[in-house]
Amino acid sequence: MESREKRNVLHNQERLGPLPMERIRQVGEPTNIITDGVQRIDLRNIAYDVARRGEYGRVVQKGVQKSLPGKYPLSAAQKDVMDHLSLVTGHPAAMELAPIPHEPEALTRHIKAVGYFLKADIMGACIVPQSAYYSHDKQGVPIEVKYENAIVIVMGKDWNAVRASTGSDWIGDPISFQAYQHLGLVAETIANYIRRLGWDASAQYGPSFVDKYSVLMPPLLLRAGIGEVSRAGIILNPYLGLGYKAAAVLTNMPVVPDKPIDFGLQRFCQGCKICAENCPSCAISTGDKVMYNGYETWKLDTRRCASFNFTNKKGTMCNRCVKSCPWTYPATWPHNLVRGMVMHSRLAQQIAIRAAHLLGTGKDHPEDKWWFDLEYVDNGLKSRNDEQN
Amino acid sequence: MESREKRNVLHNQERLGPLPMERIRQVGEPTNIITDGVQRIDLRNIAYDVARRGEYGRVVQKGVQKSLPGKYPLSAAQKDVMDHLSLVTGHPAAMELAPIPHEPEALTRHIKAVGYFLKADIMGACIVPQSAYYSHDKQGVPIEVKYENAIVIVMGKDWNAVRASTGSDWIGDPISFQAYQHLGLVAETIANYIRRLGWDASAQYGPSFVDKYSVLMPPLLLRAGIGEVSRAGIILNPYLGLGYKAAAVLTNMPVVPDKPIDFGLQRFCQGCKICAENCPSCAISTGDKVMYNGYETWKLDTRRCASFNFTNKKGTMCNRCVKSCPWTYPATWPHNLVRGMVMHSRLAQQIAIRAAHLLGTGKDHPEDKWWFDLEYVDNGLKSRNDEQN
Repeated sequence: MESREKRNVLHNQERLGPLPMERIRQVGEPTNIITDGVQRIDLRNIAYDVARRGEYGRVVQKGVQKSLPGKYPLSAAQKDVMDHLSLVTGHPAAMELAPIPHEPEALTRHIKAVGYFLKADIMGACIVPQSAYYSHDKQGVPIEVKYENAIVIVMGKDWNAVRASTGSDWIGDPISFQAYQHLGLVAETIANYIRRLGWDASAQYGPSFVDKYSVLMPPLLLRAGIGEVSRAGIILNPYLGLGYKAAAVLTNMPVVPDKPIDFGLQRFCQGCKICAENCPSCAISTGDKVMYNGYETWKLDTRRCASFNFTNKKGTMCNRCVKSCPWTYPATWPHNLVRGMVMHSRLAQQIAIRAAHLLGTGKDHPEDKWWFDLEYVDNGLKSRNDEQN
Repeated sequence: MESREKRNVLHNQERLGPLPMERIRQVGEPTNIITDGVQRIDLRNIAYDVARRGEYGRVVQKGVQKSLPGKYPLSAAQKDVMDHLSLVTGHPAAMELAPIPHEPEALTRHIKAVGYFLKADIMGACIVPQSAYYSHDKQGVPIEVKYENAIVIVMGKDWNAVRASTGSDWIGDPISFQAYQHLGLVAETIANYIRRLGWDASAQYGPSFVDKYSVLMPPLLLRAGIGEVSRAGIILNPYLGLGYKAAAVLTNMPVVPDKPIDFGLQRFCQGCKICAENCPSCAISTGDKVMYNGYETWKLDTRRCASFNFTNKKGTMCNRCVKSCPWTYPATWPHNLVRGMVMHSRLAQQIAIRAAHLLGTGKDHPEDKWWFDLEYVDNGLKSRNDEQN
């Protein structure tokens, strides 16, 4: 219950969440190169829609037609609730600004405090680069670059389920949806609250089926100091590793942006390839970073990753990179001690990478499995336990 | 981050949540007398409706007309989202039972596991006494006694906000709503999930304005081993004290009921009157337990409590009994050490009660306050900071 106590404490006017993000070194720019040539992405070109159109082949297309969350009753139940939640209309922006301090510092600190009060794991703020906006929505309508500022909300995935999962089983989607459900609730509440204070605000969250994103999250996560680009091609947080989901509230409320962070991940991921070695679809690069749409990154083979997930007969979504990443281990004091050493010493990095391989951070823990393997077939449920073993 | 790690761990087939409830002594019957003469309560007779009808006087009636959550922008924003969430229809019960073990033990353990996975603080199960059902709904329609079994879900209130609040300020409603929002999300998800597995299920949660209760929670909390009757007139949990809210999922899925618990609270509350001393409306009894509708309890003066809250010009809802109760202190190891001693020794009880009075567990901590005091007046927001100080 340490987290319950640590949350929300204000010391010398500095607000802290449950994770000691204030210990991480802040820098002027993200640790990966970002050029001016970043092109806005069309929401019709994200993996799900590309696969649905048949551009990843007939087999994958057929897999997509059977909705992933709809394969399994727990993820389907979570989807029932998320589909409904995402339709909340909310309160319009008040005609007058509330009689509170209007300085960006005070407002940013206050909204972060609200987020921690609502049980976010990390809160951040940033200026939204125009290129982070998708160019067109799923219906092909151009998306307006409407808000300059973003509040970023991070929720960790359930570590015990991640740890117990095999990466090819039935709890993958529910793990992501647990974070997304809570993010949706918090993002909609904060957006409603900001509008009631007199600024405009729009809640942005996943999963993609709720269609509530008009921005890409990774550029916001980099700029709000949530993490660095990782080998898995996504943003890695020093205390949650790859085990989290994020949402944003876009707003015209003035904010003080957080600074990008540098905890030595670019060198770490260069040496550690444990996520790539554990990826069942060989979608994670084992090579060097490349430039992709103006971002220096290890480029995930989206087609391979999506094709594996959409056609996986033994489960819903794969969390194998998440569970194998040594940074995903919980932020308890022994793990944080290692984190501290790894952040400050090259030698410690090398030892930690070797240790992660020796200990096998991607190991399965079937003894901690609590879910049933089930699949909807012709509207009925079939047991999939036998096929797992 | 200890809680993140401890959640959901299965040891020897015994599931544990973040709080060590397995350490608490289980008993055959609740520690307060319950007779066979309990009458079902009419939802039209809960304090809010009684006050609205003018039965607590004109001043209170006028206070109720101005909605409490609507007085303050954060609680109003939470209400925006909860009002919408409560309208989720969800999935009907599947025609066939899922191919999973149908033993009550396996099903109860599984649903509790799902609840912990969805970040409940405590999960319980019980048989629902018929008298726990309200007799009529708010429209006067008789409520059917439909389900025999209940899954109980508990979420702690944000301790730092409870600690920083004065009991007569603007964060009272938001504190309750933070727990209720999350409870609604989890209860609706679990109800949907149980229905998808083939049993019927109904999510029960507050606040009363969402109108999702057809049962009273206290009888369920007693029977599911969540806590004992306390001097404040509500059920007290050994690790959350009075600082929590609860929801239930009523179902025909077979369950193994938990046992009531005995951690010595009846004697503790008899000696400790700190909640009564801290109550600004003198609504909490300083005397002995009485029989009330078949339950032996310290009887809260509902009229005084409700009248104070509905007419409070300096805030929304009062959490003063919650924050002053020594059991509400967080479940960190030093507090749990004291808990253990108090549960097992009369002398330790007496010393703890004396210490709570000396240390002043109901103290305010304005230095940790992060919210703004605001009130809607004629649809605009007015600052109420000055009137607080």
